[in-house]
Amino acid sequence: MKRIRLGMVGGGNDAFIGGVHRIAARIDDRFELLAGALSSTPEKSEASAKALGINRSYGSFTEMANAEAAREDGIEAVSIVTPNHVHAAAAKAFLAKGIHVICDKPLTSTLEDAQSLAQSVADSDALFILTHNYTGYPMIRQARDMVHAGDLGDIRIVQVEYPQDWLTSPAEKEGVKQAEWRTDPKRSGAGGSVGDIGTHAHNLACFVTGLSVEKLAADLQAFGAGRTLDDNAHVLLRFASGARGMLWSSQVAPGNENALKLRVYGSKGGLEWSQEDPNYLWFTPQGEPKRLITRNGAGAGAAASAVSRIPAGHPEGYLEGFATIYNESAEAIRAVQNGTDKATAMGLLPGIQAGLEGMAFISACVSSSAQDAAWVTL
Amino acid sequence: MKRIRLGMVGGGNDAFIGGVHRIAARIDDRFELLAGALSSTPEKSEASAKALGINRSYGSFTEMANAEAAREDGIEAVSIVTPNHVHAAAAKAFLAKGIHVICDKPLTSTLEDAQSLAQSVADSDALFILTHNYTGYPMIRQARDMVHAGDLGDIRIVQVEYPQDWLTSPAEKEGVKQAEWRTDPKRSGAGGSVGDIGTHAHNLACFVTGLSVEKLAADLQAFGAGRTLDDNAHVLLRFASGARGMLWSSQVAPGNENALKLRVYGSKGGLEWSQEDPNYLWFTPQGEPKRLITRNGAGAGAAASAVSRIPAGHPEGYLEGFATIYNESAEAIRAVQNGTDKATAMGLLPGIQAGLEGMAFISACVSSSAQDAAWVTL
Amino acid sequence: MKRIRLGMVGGGNDAFIGGVHRIAARIDDRFELLAGALSSTPEKSEASAKALGINRSYGSFTEMANAEAAREDGIEAVSIVTPNHVHAAAAKAFLAKGIHVICDKPLTSTLEDAQSLAQSVADSDALFILTHNYTGYPMIRQARDMVHAGDLGDIRIVQVEYPQDWLTSPAEKEGVKQAEWRTDPKRSGAGGSVGDIGTHAHNLACFVTGLSVEKLAADLQAFGAGRTLDDNAHVLLRFASGARGMLWSSQVAPGNENALKLRVYGSKGGLEWSQEDPNYLWFTPQGEPKRLITRNGAGAGAAASAVSRIPAGHPEGYLEGFATIYNESAEAIRAVQNGTDKATAMGLLPGIQAGLEGMAFISACVSSSAQDAAWVTL
Amino acid sequence: MKRIRLGMVGGGNDAFIGGVHRIAARIDDRFELLAGALSSTPEKSEASAKALGINRSYGSFTEMANAEAAREDGIEAVSIVTPNHVHAAAAKAFLAKGIHVICDKPLTSTLEDAQSLAQSVADSDALFILTHNYTGYPMIRQARDMVHAGDLGDIRIVQVEYPQDWLTSPAEKEGVKQAEWRTDPKRSGAGGSVGDIGTHAHNLACFVTGLSVEKLAADLQAFGAGRTLDDNAHVLLRFASGARGMLWSSQVAPGNENALKLRVYGSKGGLEWSQEDPNYLWFTPQGEPKRLITRNGAGAGAAASAVSRIPAGHPEGYLEGFATIYNESAEAIRAVQNGTDKATAMGLLPGIQAGLEGMAFISACVSSSAQDAAWVTL
Repeated sequence: MKRIRLGMVGGGNDAFIGGVHRIAARIDDRFELLAGALSSTPEKSEASAKALGINRSYGSFTEMANAEAAREDGIEAVSIVTPNHVHAAAAKAFLAKGIHVICDKPLTSTLEDAQSLAQSVADSDALFILTHNYTGYPMIRQARDMVHAGDLGDIRIVQVEYPQDWLTSPAEKEGVKQAEWRTDPKRSGAGGSVGDIGTHAHNLACFVTGLSVEKLAADLQAFGAGRTLDDNAHVLLRFASGARGMLWSSQVAPGNENALKLRVYGSKGGLEWSQEDPNYLWFTPQGEPKRLITRNGAGAGAAASAVSRIPAGHPEGYLEGFATIYNESAEAIRAVQNGTDKATAMGLLPGIQAGLEGMAFISACVSSSAQDAAWVTL
Repeated sequence: MKRIRLGMVGGGNDAFIGGVHRIAARIDDRFELLAGALSSTPEKSEASAKALGINRSYGSFTEMANAEAAREDGIEAVSIVTPNHVHAAAAKAFLAKGIHVICDKPLTSTLEDAQSLAQSVADSDALFILTHNYTGYPMIRQARDMVHAGDLGDIRIVQVEYPQDWLTSPAEKEGVKQAEWRTDPKRSGAGGSVGDIGTHAHNLACFVTGLSVEKLAADLQAFGAGRTLDDNAHVLLRFASGARGMLWSSQVAPGNENALKLRVYGSKGGLEWSQEDPNYLWFTPQGEPKRLITRNGAGAGAAASAVSRIPAGHPEGYLEGFATIYNESAEAIRAVQNGTDKATAMGLLPGIQAGLEGMAFISACVSSSAQDAAWVTL
Repeated sequence: MKRIRLGMVGGGNDAFIGGVHRIAARIDDRFELLAGALSSTPEKSEASAKALGINRSYGSFTEMANAEAAREDGIEAVSIVTPNHVHAAAAKAFLAKGIHVICDKPLTSTLEDAQSLAQSVADSDALFILTHNYTGYPMIRQARDMVHAGDLGDIRIVQVEYPQDWLTSPAEKEGVKQAEWRTDPKRSGAGGSVGDIGTHAHNLACFVTGLSVEKLAADLQAFGAGRTLDDNAHVLLRFASGARGMLWSSQVAPGNENALKLRVYGSKGGLEWSQEDPNYLWFTPQGEPKRLITRNGAGAGAAASAVSRIPAGHPEGYLEGFATIYNESAEAIRAVQNGTDKATAMGLLPGIQAGLEGMAFISACVSSSAQDAAWVTL
Repeated sequence: MKRIRLGMVGGGNDAFIGGVHRIAARIDDRFELLAGALSSTPEKSEASAKALGINRSYGSFTEMANAEAAREDGIEAVSIVTPNHVHAAAAKAFLAKGIHVICDKPLTSTLEDAQSLAQSVADSDALFILTHNYTGYPMIRQARDMVHAGDLGDIRIVQVEYPQDWLTSPAEKEGVKQAEWRTDPKRSGAGGSVGDIGTHAHNLACFVTGLSVEKLAADLQAFGAGRTLDDNAHVLLRFASGARGMLWSSQVAPGNENALKLRVYGSKGGLEWSQEDPNYLWFTPQGEPKRLITRNGAGAGAAASAVSRIPAGHPEGYLEGFATIYNESAEAIRAVQNGTDKATAMGLLPGIQAGLEGMAFISACVSSSAQDAAWVTL
């Protein structure tokens, strides 16, 4: 299959997530990175492009969208890996030209931007994919399949948490660039930890269980001196189905590197998964011994194998999970190009709807916390 | 040292916790079990006493308190291991006679009983010890010492949970005696999982951190058909110090046997401990590798060693932790008999105050949940 | 049931293993410790006895055997917890008087002593029990039952190891009493780590699999400067059945506290167990997910439950496993007193045969190593 | 930096390891796969090439070597991923043309082939890299650095094992292609499990410790009915430095997927690492708590960070470790092209010497086992 011509907005030299997207796009060999508007100035962009061996460097995403759309061999898709507040404008520029968009999360920094972007997605023939990368892990696919197959019975309880420790000390005052924009409401939006990682936790819980959060009550804290955005959040969840849950996100929990963890309990069994050990899924049918299902190992089904590359016991990790989102994006793009309708082509890929739900989650958390943790309907 | 003459109320043949108390009392050889009112009828009591080699069997705790108090060689202390609603009356009978009381938790089934019992404790020269047994684990003592020594800095976040799975199926309708009285408000009080195990979680969090809960917001559920008491509870915590926390108790989480787990995070470091693997304590000083402190091993201090019996690598468990409460009770009783004042003699032992706090916790959870998880001050 | 009158030889104030035996004897309330020859001098013995509340203190085990045998209410059984080289003489003194012997391992310090003791056991009506305590762990019973039931198919491979780290530094030169006699061939016999802990590993492997070692090839090392006894041993095993194995014992492996671990693999499945986490047994039926069987939990059978005291999730440990040996010793003693033959009464208890096999194992290891790891037949 | 023009021999449609090499070559974007002789027939090769988007497909490696060497834009390097017995001839063809060779392990199927290949490597200006991929894991680099820095003191004990379970059942009779050639001496050479995975274990132990095995005594078994090659091996190791070790390789140990594990103990500390959880390294300085060092996390040094791509807590796995070998190969190739001498350019990369040591290891194992596990000098 011919590789998809890809561009990138953001992801210049120092950025973390841009490099991740590039590796993810390469792993399964479905993309070719040909163009970029990688930094905030044309000079920096050019330097970054050169370092990456990208020939077509642009000074801005607008320029890039126009120029690429005009070329015979212009990019078919673009990855948007800027800070949150740029997502909407950049995505719209490409969607307007019929160029497929693969966008980092959360969707935008404001709800207004999100809604406006949603309209652009609806109006475009191009796909919009949001890289909720954790949905690409094989054992998350396995978990989702097991819930849907009824292996857990009726879902009663969802415990999801995403603690980190990198903001325990005041990193934003110590020159850590990531910390600077993550703690800045102008660039990150109204949510701190709830926006950056709480959205991942929320998305993962909904993806695996197939349930949606109806109401939440959130108690947000900013433990770091001088912070205006939350660096820790405690959230009670009520799902529309009657299931209940708790969500914890934190950037100030020493000893937690990137400890996203999901536990789901139903009337017939329970599941537990941890992002830091992603090749394992614990399953306990009530009244039987706990079972350790391994990626591609005995007990793992077709959904997990379909997104695995190597045999059980050979660990796949974060980059492979991310690559699955890219691989499935390639499939979806080719499908749409071949006439499949957008919704069908998307398959399990997270899109604008997941993005809007994430924005609603952030907004509800902030609003609830402002009302002393009152229940807020999403 | 001479062994303390001990009696027991409750703990007849089928009871679980009575047997635990008896083993705990034996392990360190500080008690001699001599008298009992072990069951609800004189005949059953007699049969149980005989099976246990206890000579002095009584038909009721009142009879027992009177008779034993009248003997030269009467019991010095009594263990009360009945269902919750009997605790208060039984304890009062012995306290009134100056006999020390070691009582299972939670304190009582109603707040009124608890307050009335508190008065009796205040009026008596005898000690009242509540077996919040998890405070007896060496690594919990270690954790408490580390928090108090400032190893974690200012405490910011407390995550505590106590999930079990034994009520996932309707055990109370399947002839499981434990399940019958645990799900019966008349015998257990207003709290289901929050009363039975949530109180342990609450007590442990406070014991280790030295903090007290100021307010809580609780969302209680009864997932089991026909249940009136909660079998799952989600609670947001606000500590007086400004620390925040979450507490989860559940009896319907498949795959969780007795999974009490405490995590505490401060401005300088974090601690994690799990009851099912009690000989380990994880400690992460922010910015350094995680350390695994083992009971009596390198890194474990005096507080842990003082309540350990055997070298590191030789696991001690639940019964040993429980035995520590008994061992320290013996110390306290002898101290009081030798003239030490009650408060000093108690040392780290949980007493009436811990019991009242537990009752207040249950009451606040139930009240908050009745108000749709509004904040309730303890 | 009436408690068995018990005496003790060795186990004075400073000794580690004597205290363990006493707790183990108390846990299930089947013994009453009444007499002792606890130390090497009458004065020290008396002091230790007083501290323990034992009234009948003797200056030597000979005196004790004679005196106790002459009393109406003399001891029925004796625990021998001296250094290895005293085991044989002490045990013989009591066996000759018909007093049941519960003896710490390894059996003796020389093969001659062992054989002579075996004769005394054969000649006596009394039982001889060797406290290979690890056979008392519930999950070891479970493992044994599963092997015997054929859950693993034909046993092919046995991996057993027992690393510790306490002799990494020259503890015997730093005043550690345990280290002094453990590294002294006169008091410990020909084996260092192979005698002290290798015998446990060997015993456990044979107990669980039901197989016996036919030949071994051993490479013993003394890494600690000036040591004559091995502090590390690598052993190849050939079982009579055709199964093969490896055994590693070490006292110089930093990070290993008491890390006895057994892994057994057959044509149909595998088992893994670790002493430091004794409530878990991993079982993998070939081609299925790994299962975590927990003590008294789902998947655990009658053999494990029979020697458990408390529910799953409430960890039992080293002392409880040891107590099971005492509890079953009590059963065996009462059975013999009631006319059951010795072999039947012993049940699963390790006895003189296990002791002789342990001595043969030590002897073969030392002999093989002296021949540059040549195969030696046991 | 310009990407290196790469070819591939072997790795057609069904092959496992070819796909791994291709992903590994892509991850860091240092290679471009342009040519291939992917299968044993021109037709199959062509089909595989087409599927992979490779334009230059050849009928044999000889033809490929000649044709590519003759092109201006011919390949600079070739990956050889055929069954073992083809390695030598293929590698020689390219080395003779000055084309750098990246070869799968073990080196060859016979010692003669290995020695002859070694001569070709010596005679060529091109590099020869052997993909002992496990040396590319960041925490293995970390472990090596810690050993070399003296953090463990003098190395005393090396425990290394590599158990798998995929040959527990007779897979070679059930149509599993991998199993067919792995159990066939003609295609795999004299070693079964010792050749396939024992060499990895041997290589890893030597890489991390910097020690070399002087002598070994091996007991090889073929448990699967009808097998001539070992499917399980127990090996005693004596290192030239005086350190001792054990090595276990197995393909018949149910529950072990790919459980390569290395433990190293010295006079001052110990290290433990498991391939299935590769982002963790356990380090115990004697007398201190065990520490969990994480990839790119606190405690991890420059050697580990240099070969990490993403932050701690975002797991990297098998493919990333493999990619590091490719990335460093690219560096080495460019360095040689720029005039650096071959030895310097190789850096930590495994080459012909590691391959010869692996062949000597296999040969010694087979020879020792044939002599009833006598010591054989390497």
